[in-house]
Amino acid sequence: MNKIFRINMSDMTSKVESVPAEWAGLGGRGLTSTIVAAEVPPRCHPLGPNNKLVFAPGLLTGTPAAQSGRLSAGAKSPLTGTIKESNAGGTAAQQLARMGIKAIVIEGMPSEDKWYRLHVTLDGISIEPADELVGKQNFAVMDQLMDKFGPKIGILTIGVPGELRMCAANISVKDPDQKIRSHGRGGLGAVMGSKKIKCITIDDSGGGKVPIADPDKFRTAAKIFAKSLLDHPVSGEGLPTYGTNILINILNEAGGLPTKNFRYGQCEHHEKISGETMHETIVARGGKHKHGCHAGCIIQCSQVYVDEAGIYVTSGFEYETIWGLGANAMIENLDDIAKCDNIMDDIGIDSIEGAVLLATAMEAGVIPWGDGKECLRVLRDEIGKGTPLGRILGNGTASVGKAYGLVRVPVVKGQGIPAYDPRSVKGIGVTYATSTMGADHTAGYTIATNILKVGGYIDPLKKEGQVELSRNLQIATAAVDSTGMCVFIAFPALDIPESFTALIDLINAAYGLSLTADDVTELGKKILKIEHDFNKGAGFTNQDDRLPEFFTYEPIPPHNAVWDFTDEEIDEFWNF
Amino acid sequence: MNKIFRINMSDMTSKVESVPAEWAGLGGRGLTSTIVAAEVPPRCHPLGPNNKLVFAPGLLTGTPAAQSGRLSAGAKSPLTGTIKESNAGGTAAQQLARMGIKAIVIEGMPSEDKWYRLHVTLDGISIEPADELVGKQNFAVMDQLMDKFGPKIGILTIGVPGELRMCAANISVKDPDQKIRSHGRGGLGAVMGSKKIKCITIDDSGGGKVPIADPDKFRTAAKIFAKSLLDHPVSGEGLPTYGTNILINILNEAGGLPTKNFRYGQCEHHEKISGETMHETIVARGGKHKHGCHAGCIIQCSQVYVDEAGIYVTSGFEYETIWGLGANAMIENLDDIAKCDNIMDDIGIDSIEGAVLLATAMEAGVIPWGDGKECLRVLRDEIGKGTPLGRILGNGTASVGKAYGLVRVPVVKGQGIPAYDPRSVKGIGVTYATSTMGADHTAGYTIATNILKVGGYIDPLKKEGQVELSRNLQIATAAVDSTGMCVFIAFPALDIPESFTALIDLINAAYGLSLTADDVTELGKKILKIEHDFNKGAGFTNQDDRLPEFFTYEPIPPHNAVWDFTDEEIDEFWNF
Repeated sequence: MNKIFRINMSDMTSKVESVPAEWAGLGGRGLTSTIVAAEVPPRCHPLGPNNKLVFAPGLLTGTPAAQSGRLSAGAKSPLTGTIKESNAGGTAAQQLARMGIKAIVIEGMPSEDKWYRLHVTLDGISIEPADELVGKQNFAVMDQLMDKFGPKIGILTIGVPGELRMCAANISVKDPDQKIRSHGRGGLGAVMGSKKIKCITIDDSGGGKVPIADPDKFRTAAKIFAKSLLDHPVSGEGLPTYGTNILINILNEAGGLPTKNFRYGQCEHHEKISGETMHETIVARGGKHKHGCHAGCIIQCSQVYVDEAGIYVTSGFEYETIWGLGANAMIENLDDIAKCDNIMDDIGIDSIEGAVLLATAMEAGVIPWGDGKECLRVLRDEIGKGTPLGRILGNGTASVGKAYGLVRVPVVKGQGIPAYDPRSVKGIGVTYATSTMGADHTAGYTIATNILKVGGYIDPLKKEGQVELSRNLQIATAAVDSTGMCVFIAFPALDIPESFTALIDLINAAYGLSLTADDVTELGKKILKIEHDFNKGAGFTNQDDRLPEFFTYEPIPPHNAVWDFTDEEIDEFWNF
Repeated sequence: MNKIFRINMSDMTSKVESVPAEWAGLGGRGLTSTIVAAEVPPRCHPLGPNNKLVFAPGLLTGTPAAQSGRLSAGAKSPLTGTIKESNAGGTAAQQLARMGIKAIVIEGMPSEDKWYRLHVTLDGISIEPADELVGKQNFAVMDQLMDKFGPKIGILTIGVPGELRMCAANISVKDPDQKIRSHGRGGLGAVMGSKKIKCITIDDSGGGKVPIADPDKFRTAAKIFAKSLLDHPVSGEGLPTYGTNILINILNEAGGLPTKNFRYGQCEHHEKISGETMHETIVARGGKHKHGCHAGCIIQCSQVYVDEAGIYVTSGFEYETIWGLGANAMIENLDDIAKCDNIMDDIGIDSIEGAVLLATAMEAGVIPWGDGKECLRVLRDEIGKGTPLGRILGNGTASVGKAYGLVRVPVVKGQGIPAYDPRSVKGIGVTYATSTMGADHTAGYTIATNILKVGGYIDPLKKEGQVELSRNLQIATAAVDSTGMCVFIAFPALDIPESFTALIDLINAAYGLSLTADDVTELGKKILKIEHDFNKGAGFTNQDDRLPEFFTYEPIPPHNAVWDFTDEEIDEFWNF
């Protein structure tokens, strides 16, 4: 990977640049965050001409290493005002990597109200009109583009909420089954919309293989790495069988499953929405309970959820979405939840933000608690069409809270808090508070150690050790997010020493390097600090590394825990 | 004034407290900001149980000194997230002062969804049900309360937008003519609504005179002070004749009249909305072109605007409102603008925020440019009723910008920028950027020196001297806002040495003190620093002391000026 494709939407010019030496060792999040920090003024308006949208495959993307097919997208987020990296599976990452494209940088903003499609080939990027695609949702856009270019075309696209620059809008990526994966969090779809880019097509004709410096060493490491994924009970057994939704019953048992907009830590109807129930339903109806979001995935935590007639409803049906709609918004019908997930894919909004904001709309009295049918209507006809109510909702949980004057608004830095209650799983609360991305469980997934007892065990209800746990995981995750690896490789990496060694060997073999574990840690630290510095430049301080006030005075059953960290304790996070 | 009335809406208790010694020398803004800073956690949710709403008359309020009848309201603002003081005329300030009430502090929040009226008498505050008033707008509330208590009852009230906790909601105060004055800026009506207080009635039976330590000295100073107000061309002639709307032609001439949502600095139809046209219209129709917002006002910058049949339309019809609707939202019909002003009084929203947000809604394409009739409908039927569109708009300019993904959003710290373009009148830009209150012209009204040549002259188009000018005025204003004096006393105070001396003599004579001009300056500095520290605790930094990015790259005709201060230059402001 030796080229940066850069496109300027203000003057409609396109360039192919070589990679500056200081960016050569970077990929994925490390590269998107470095480019954004270097080129975007931290105080700029995220939907204005000075923001940039950057895509970068990971360091190992396009190689045969398992789980390495993730694409990072980065920009200043219109949802949080912070720097943002959001990564997704799909086919685009591997296509770009095999074309030797280390990053795509999209800058500027057209003055005319016209829409465009970017077309990426080995030669560079061309800017094409997209008039016939505007106003369409994602599946229609993908169908139309596949009709035009054939099924192998790579696609990144936004739905109508992205066109309307709503802060919950995501960027959708075509997956190997021509369905959708998402750069979900942080409203990057609105950034793409602000630049009047409806979609990006990738024609990888002529692309070759990603070069590997030491193929033998790579092959050996890849085997060890793959074996460790299959050997670990979470990545080898739990996730392939039940998907991420295995967590409903686990979190309910732990009292950390936020229910009815974070009122309770357990949900009475948890069995109706659990991974076990989902697995049985899929198997009984003839769906697929194992499915990968990109070629080379051996965890296969995705699935294809079908209706009673066996017809596709949704895939990539994640725990966080099911929690958000099922427990937090109290929808008991798993089919309704699946249909909501499908609509969120279609209109292109983050299904975590979408689920959290729907529960907040219930808190506001706009939607009755648990009314899945009304959620479907609201997603399709309000958010999907940009009505005034749709604008309120489509701009995210914080927007709903503001519009309706709510106090119980579960956001950090404007981003909806996901599926793990920070009062009863305190480590994840530290991650929500301190992440450079706003509330984000993947930034430092302490659930591994607090709940799943991976990488040791730290009591989720006690404060001791949580800041250090979150810090270590956030540092490691920033590095992993740079490799193009999916975050679930952390399970074996934390428990099986050879797994982590193999990961480093993969990088060394691919690039002819001799990095150590310490080098990887240093990379993670460097990325976090670059991101943190950007945020400070944007006006964020330690005072923003806080959870919403209501967590401090509302105890959550069954443990009746409150969020009890002092400011000083939280601020220890950045001491590294 | 020796009592603080404190009411707790969580446990429905009320107390009368003596004034702590360290608060004895404070009044108005100095007292509200001191109490808020001392008792409100800076990071608390402004609509949650830990915010407090404080009312305080000024140090001279209730005395016979001219212009001294202003009431300060303070809290953490839901619009800006900063500390907030907003002062208003009306009858309440003088009533409270004569009852010996130095401040009313409202804390806590009821758990039940029931509405209340606070009833203030010499004995304390009682909490009464307000079921029959809920859902009504201000004029209906006032009529109903005057029917019940007689015309002398003091009233503070919120309309439906305040009940719905919208961030543009103000607190309305009954004026001497039983019309409305407003604690306009910063959404304090939403704070009152969050505490489920629909209105406050003040029965001042048994209240006496405000004691004066040295009546002779006071009388002498009051005469000199009053004479200076009448002698100065702005307060003695311009304001009484044309009201504050004298500024339309002056700012248009200066190229600093923001037009079409801050696109241009001059407005083609300025004559149709000017103070001169307004004056002629009022005189021809038999309205009043002079009118005071409180007893003892001798400037009389208010007026009673009537329709062609001579029937009341609005009063307190200010330049900022007329600019915002007339030039910035391009409404050419002054009658439509007056009707909008009346509706904003009735539903209880800040007419500056209201005007700025309507222009922003035009920028978004929600309302056609210049469509006064549609603005009337939107104010009455959308914002006034809390429809989804009304929620978007009623939460202020920043909310509109967020909902519609706009880049050209004229706000600082979330508050709409008022009637003077910061690019072509640079001193006021420094005030907008640095004020502890968000964009607020009254915080340091450099228009006096930049445009009206009061207190000297500093070229509005040059950067030199503007930071110092804004700093000096902000310090002086913080002190003046503590006296209960209206801000327009600054005109003679800046130009006529005896005027400022007389003001200090008034305070000294009233309290038996011997303050110097330096003491007053120190008071102003102290207040600003208390407010600034609160904001820092809430997470604000120098990076928030910035104007919207588009001012830096969009030149404004006719001078084609941009906002060109460096961060370092602006940050000099706090060096005192």
